[in-house]
Amino acid sequence: MYKTVFFDIDDTLYNTSEFAELARKAALDAMIEAGLPLSRSKAYKLLRDIIKEKGSNYGKHFNLLTKRVLGKEDPLLIALAVITYHNVKFAHLKPFPETIPTLLYLKCKGYKIGVISNGLTIKQWEKLIRLGIHHFFDVVVTSEEVGVEKPEPGIFKEALKRIKSKAEEAVMVGDKLKEDILGAVKVGMSAVLIGDISEKEKEYLKKLENKTNKKIYVISKLDELKEIL
Amino acid sequence: MYKTVFFDIDDTLYNTSEFAELARKAALDAMIEAGLPLSRSKAYKLLRDIIKEKGSNYGKHFNLLTKRVLGKEDPLLIALAVITYHNVKFAHLKPFPETIPTLLYLKCKGYKIGVISNGLTIKQWEKLIRLGIHHFFDVVVTSEEVGVEKPEPGIFKEALKRIKSKAEEAVMVGDKLKEDILGAVKVGMSAVLIGDISEKEKEYLKKLENKTNKKIYVISKLDELKEIL
Repeated sequence: MYKTVFFDIDDTLYNTSEFAELARKAALDAMIEAGLPLSRSKAYKLLRDIIKEKGSNYGKHFNLLTKRVLGKEDPLLIALAVITYHNVKFAHLKPFPETIPTLLYLKCKGYKIGVISNGLTIKQWEKLIRLGIHHFFDVVVTSEEVGVEKPEPGIFKEALKRIKSKAEEAVMVGDKLKEDILGAVKVGMSAVLIGDISEKEKEYLKKLENKTNKKIYVISKLDELKEIL
Repeated sequence: MYKTVFFDIDDTLYNTSEFAELARKAALDAMIEAGLPLSRSKAYKLLRDIIKEKGSNYGKHFNLLTKRVLGKEDPLLIALAVITYHNVKFAHLKPFPETIPTLLYLKCKGYKIGVISNGLTIKQWEKLIRLGIHHFFDVVVTSEEVGVEKPEPGIFKEALKRIKSKAEEAVMVGDKLKEDILGAVKVGMSAVLIGDISEKEKEYLKKLENKTNKKIYVISKLDELKEIL
């Protein structure tokens, strides 16, 4: 029945949230060690506020942090933070153990495989290349290219068009209830949510299934896709 | 006709010789900059002699080099060399562009895929993991495990046994005429040599084919396997 599988990248194909936090904390520690006059907890709260305010794709979180604390940007502290952040992030940048076996399974079963991701095009490709999985995907669609983000229908429709698939033959796999699941079923695709969900969310999904007449699966690890596909 | 494909690792699945040389030169430069009293060309010649003498899997090339030049080991210079060598090697450690697409093609065609490699077990696994391709292989056999090196028949026979394949249904792919090609056809496997060969080598292969009645192919890039398999 299904012929096409789309994946979200972050926290779906690899663990990013957990390691982004580790990397941010290491970067702040490096700045504090080098003289940033702030406690760890205050520095972390300030950085979180800045990320919330400017969005996670804003390139100058650490610049702004030094400016707010010191009255002006401090190039040494900023450079230290950037180096530390990237070293920690890259050290942890690897696929989930199930990612490659699952992609391999789907590929060999003849599924078309694509990526639908909110983010900057080069940054998302860089992740796929660093993860060593870019050869698996027939199509990679980012919000930057399309001009709208998940859960907007436009990005899902563009992805379906590029991969030459009907919505009813496609499944979207992602970790975000709104962006990935709601977005996908609204255009007529089925959806697989990866991760733990609350009772309340479970009820919401049940209603969404009934309303859209689309199948929504919940799995905790990527290799459970083999039971669905 | 063929059901199983074995691969050599070094210079077959990724480019090692070229980058090992770059890494060695960078390591020597770092030592010279830090005070090793030798010209680049003399240092390189000495290192090559040591590698030839002790073999490439000997873990203390740089230790011996400082000992020979300075009369005793110099920990700072050795550590500098080791760090530089690994940084340069790792920066270049990636599969050939054709490697993953070719493995993917073979895997999806239903071939069993294995590795037969001369080398230390953990080191070879480390390479497969760093290259991001360890999930592709049904069997990985190293000379350290088996106790004999290619082209000895023992290592090929052990690999055939583990992957449950008959010799005549298996192909060995590698870059070394003696180790990979001669070794494979001697146990009844077909063979694919990857790389450029001289007229003399071409004649040798022709004779070897006639003598063993086994097929020997020569390709210049891994994706040409698709024309054979």
